[in-house]
Amino acid sequence: MPVDQPLHWDSLWINVHLATVADANGYGDIRDGAIAVKDGRIAWLGARSALPAGYQAKETHDGEGCWLTPGLIDCHTHIVYAGNRSDEFEARLNGVAYEEIAKRGGGIVSTVRATRAATEDALYAASLPRVRNLLAEGVTTLEIKSGYGLDLESERKMLRVARKLGATLPVRVKTTFLGAHALPPEYAGQADAYIDLICEQMLPALADEGLADAVDAFCEKIGFSSAQTERVFEAAKERGLPVKLHAEQLSDQGGAALTARYRGLSADHLEYLSDEGIAAMAAAGTVAVLLPGAFYFLRETKFPPLQALRDAGVPIAISTDCNPGTSPMTSLLLAMNMACTIFRMTPQEALAGATIHAARALGMEKDCGSLAVGKLADFALWAIDRPGDLAYAIGGNPCQAVVNAGVKRGARIDAAG
Amino acid sequence: MPVDQPLHWDSLWINVHLATVADANGYGDIRDGAIAVKDGRIAWLGARSALPAGYQAKETHDGEGCWLTPGLIDCHTHIVYAGNRSDEFEARLNGVAYEEIAKRGGGIVSTVRATRAATEDALYAASLPRVRNLLAEGVTTLEIKSGYGLDLESERKMLRVARKLGATLPVRVKTTFLGAHALPPEYAGQADAYIDLICEQMLPALADEGLADAVDAFCEKIGFSSAQTERVFEAAKERGLPVKLHAEQLSDQGGAALTARYRGLSADHLEYLSDEGIAAMAAAGTVAVLLPGAFYFLRETKFPPLQALRDAGVPIAISTDCNPGTSPMTSLLLAMNMACTIFRMTPQEALAGATIHAARALGMEKDCGSLAVGKLADFALWAIDRPGDLAYAIGGNPCQAVVNAGVKRGARIDAAG
Ligand SMILES: [Zn+2]
Ligand SMILES: [Zn+2]
Repeated sequence: MPVDQPLHWDSLWINVHLATVADANGYGDIRDGAIAVKDGRIAWLGARSALPAGYQAKETHDGEGCWLTPGLIDCHTHIVYAGNRSDEFEARLNGVAYEEIAKRGGGIVSTVRATRAATEDALYAASLPRVRNLLAEGVTTLEIKSGYGLDLESERKMLRVARKLGATLPVRVKTTFLGAHALPPEYAGQADAYIDLICEQMLPALADEGLADAVDAFCEKIGFSSAQTERVFEAAKERGLPVKLHAEQLSDQGGAALTARYRGLSADHLEYLSDEGIAAMAAAGTVAVLLPGAFYFLRETKFPPLQALRDAGVPIAISTDCNPGTSPMTSLLLAMNMACTIFRMTPQEALAGATIHAARALGMEKDCGSLAVGKLADFALWAIDRPGDLAYAIGGNPCQAVVNAGVKRGARIDAAG
Repeated sequence: MPVDQPLHWDSLWINVHLATVADANGYGDIRDGAIAVKDGRIAWLGARSALPAGYQAKETHDGEGCWLTPGLIDCHTHIVYAGNRSDEFEARLNGVAYEEIAKRGGGIVSTVRATRAATEDALYAASLPRVRNLLAEGVTTLEIKSGYGLDLESERKMLRVARKLGATLPVRVKTTFLGAHALPPEYAGQADAYIDLICEQMLPALADEGLADAVDAFCEKIGFSSAQTERVFEAAKERGLPVKLHAEQLSDQGGAALTARYRGLSADHLEYLSDEGIAAMAAAGTVAVLLPGAFYFLRETKFPPLQALRDAGVPIAISTDCNPGTSPMTSLLLAMNMACTIFRMTPQEALAGATIHAARALGMEKDCGSLAVGKLADFALWAIDRPGDLAYAIGGNPCQAVVNAGVKRGARIDAAG
């Protein structure tokens, strides 16, 4: 309690229970708490009974007994795209083979085709309902990757749409350049030449334009090799951009260790993560981002090494991985349930995974992810009995209100097109 | 097109694509369709271009390009209960053993205790948000079981709450008496005596009071034997009530065949269903109700015999099984996704499973479950590209409006307490 600061607050929330997520043990519960906002940041929090004498608040909000948590953070999404791949989903379930779907122009190339063809406005409009779904569930910070453009102009368009979503909706958006997501059709058989294009033209241009907050790649047998990934990481380093990686999803390519060597923010997926990869991540402070939606949708059977990650003290984040091919999911609450039900994380780990560890995966742990004095006043209010309810319930949305940098909105979002 | 009827309609919906689900092949698509309502029932439907000359409609609604499907039907829920078992979920994930949880008073008995203790108003209030979640996703008909009271007074209270939900919310509720859900603590070791109570007192009283539309039991090693189940079925038969059964969830007890012998509406769960059970269901017209939410939540590995059910022509319905212990799920759309993702049903089967086959599981196939002239005008409008999107998306709710017996409401529900 920084009692040396002037106690003139912009707003004060009372009649709430706080789950600060600031304490590694437990939810950081403060029953019958209060939280004060000044200049968009948390100015005070604690038990209501401990409110300092002489405080003044311009506004006082009654939380009506809700639980108040940090705003949720979805730290790994491909939510900006055009097109719709429900037809592939349906075809597969009707027994059509992958090869046949590919022959018909399906798979990631269909999303690339539709995304390239879409105008910036159309791409924004297509992405908007998906982002709104997340925001309605208390998401206040969102990572959005490029990676369906695969040429400079189209990647730029995706990242501009991501920025525009952040500018027009009550959400903080962090962008990630994922040019090395897949090989574009025009570079078939020339992966190294495409990596040249990324490193020499796309990445420098997008970095100069301020469109990318980080750089990512898909390091996999069916993606890019670790040598190619390293070239992308070098180019990112030259521009001063942090890196992260789609690593060890389908096989162990040593991607997590590579990411750790570049002091990467996160390594994501990690089903095939080795002990060496875990040790490297722990040493580098690289976050493990687990993506149970993709695991569920792909009916994977190889689990990420949860206990070993815990034992090594690697922070574990959870995300939707929202994308049309392997995780058409726009519910971070459901990702939290899947993290528990499928991966056997605890509800407390799931909440930390969607808040404080997700913040760290975006390099934002100083500004958000927990309730602490000095952090941004991003929080969500929930009509629940206890914090564990968030991961327990399947479907439904108990979010009652969301506060972004101190500004209250309802859980229902409307955005000007 | 019954052109012999007077073409004076109460309302007409245009600018919609219809998925009638009336055709066993395909969704029964009618692109750019129209659907007319008279006295709460469907008076006409077809291509808009085929609208008969000289029709008059008091109201014309513009569906804005939405898909219009039959209202969804959730045909197996335990949605009325008090208490909250997220603490058990959390304890288990923190490594607490089942025995320890039982020792602490957890498990179904904790729901029974809380439900018995709740006033009727409190039980209604506790159930209301869950029912609203379903209704927001286009559910127009809902089955609600008793089974957490386990004495006459408390079972009556549950069924009265179910009736009240139907009376106060825009949803058709069918009630099911599930006294034989579990053995109440006061009958420990006296299952037959409890079955006596059900057959001689509870069932007759509740039937006389008009509170039960059907009768169900939990036929399982950890539930009631098939002999005990049959006694309940006999009592139901005496009162003219149709039966259904929780059958073959954890082992093969011959419950499905028993249900078929009583011309039961449905046999539900069915992971351990035998070929004999399938044949009996097919012959009797008993619906197979699959419950992927419980399968998911319990991390089951034994799949219901989907292909054999298809081959035998057994109608397959899908439901949430909403309950606090094994499926805390209030999203029928998500149950449809799980039916596809986990069980490998097709999106078309999933939609039929949540409409026409669910209607049949409730004995309501003459009145609802598909778009057909003469049926109740219960439908849902969806902002989707194609019907398969309903089962493809994970999270989010594309429902734009719901029509109950011809009366339009928004997808967002408010009910007077
Ligand atoms: Zn991804
Ligand atoms: Zn059930």
